[in-house]
Amino acid sequence: MREIFEAELKQVGSDLAEMSRQVEIAISNAGTALLTADLHLAETVIVADEAIDAFERDLDTRCVHLLAQQAPVATDLRVIVTALRISSSLERMGDLARHVAEFSRRTYPNPAVPQAISGTFADMHIAATRVAQRTTALIETRDIDLAKSIEEDDDRLDALHEDNFTALLGGHWNGTAQQTVDTALLSRYFERFGDHAVSVARRMVYLVTGDFPEDHPTDGRARL
Amino acid sequence: MREIFEAELKQVGSDLAEMSRQVEIAISNAGTALLTADLHLAETVIVADEAIDAFERDLDTRCVHLLAQQAPVATDLRVIVTALRISSSLERMGDLARHVAEFSRRTYPNPAVPQAISGTFADMHIAATRVAQRTTALIETRDIDLAKSIEEDDDRLDALHEDNFTALLGGHWNGTAQQTVDTALLSRYFERFGDHAVSVARRMVYLVTGDFPEDHPTDGRARL
Repeated sequence: MREIFEAELKQVGSDLAEMSRQVEIAISNAGTALLTADLHLAETVIVADEAIDAFERDLDTRCVHLLAQQAPVATDLRVIVTALRISSSLERMGDLARHVAEFSRRTYPNPAVPQAISGTFADMHIAATRVAQRTTALIETRDIDLAKSIEEDDDRLDALHEDNFTALLGGHWNGTAQQTVDTALLSRYFERFGDHAVSVARRMVYLVTGDFPEDHPTDGRARL
Repeated sequence: MREIFEAELKQVGSDLAEMSRQVEIAISNAGTALLTADLHLAETVIVADEAIDAFERDLDTRCVHLLAQQAPVATDLRVIVTALRISSSLERMGDLARHVAEFSRRTYPNPAVPQAISGTFADMHIAATRVAQRTTALIETRDIDLAKSIEEDDDRLDALHEDNFTALLGGHWNGTAQQTVDTALLSRYFERFGDHAVSVARRMVYLVTGDFPEDHPTDGRARL
């Protein structure tokens, strides 16, 4: 009985890692589609998000069954509750990648981001892809040093988000209202993506150490 | 033993309702502060959000303890897992109300929303306050007919969000880049507030009927 349960717990862990890999691919492709106005790639991201959503539903169902059937305590319980939380954050990260892709699809064949600030979005793409890769690695290896790197990636995304607003609100911006709105929202999606990665990272630290670094990291720094 | 457990479960339910009442006050005050440029009221909302966050942490801790100590099954398990989910949505709704208040504080003594579209935001304020009130009532009474009304309120918020973008992107908008950005983000906060209420409503329907109306209602309709 115990062996089956342990196999099931292990499976939850691998599934979370697989879900995180899918999110990693999603944000990487979404960023590329955004920067290169690649309609086909954007559509790939939009379709693939359904699989990420299905993953979350499936993981949730299994976690609740494990709670019901095994009545886990201590570490086992912590693993399952943490998995429920993390799958929810990953699902949301998938949504944000999809939103970025949806912008690219809508503006095609034009790029969604004006030339003047495409460099900042290229940096956001790099930082967001890196944060997603580290999230997968953290889930797989439980190496909590990665959590610190994830916080740094998130700080980088926050700083780039600021840069976008400085560009939008400085005197040199001459984009249309549509471009202003698009830039503000796209930038916010990348920024929120980082927040959710930090949330996953803190949950993993809790899982490994029993210590929660700080509650509610998310969105304390919404750009005003 | 069973009696204590039942008392604790009941307490979780009343605490969720109380948390929801605080969110209701937050969005009501945040909207008023936004529409009347009331700095003091905005600050009240910002400070009160800490209590909402603390509420979530406390509820979570108790839910995990109940899982560990009581190993609940069937309906009891469903109540606890649902409470974990709902408190997370309510916490996020509190954050969104705080964001609205932060905009009012930043632009004070000027209103954050230009006169031309303040009517749409007045309607958003009404719809968001109503959706929050219905969310509290649904948690308190478990009357799942309220879930349908909540979906309708959310549709209303989505439509108003569209109206804002139509105003921003139509030919008649003459706001500054700052006003364009502020309007887009503020409008998004109200729209997301409705999404989270729908998420709570669907969780409550699941709790009462065992049937989940539709997974992941949130943010399928992000304005592009």
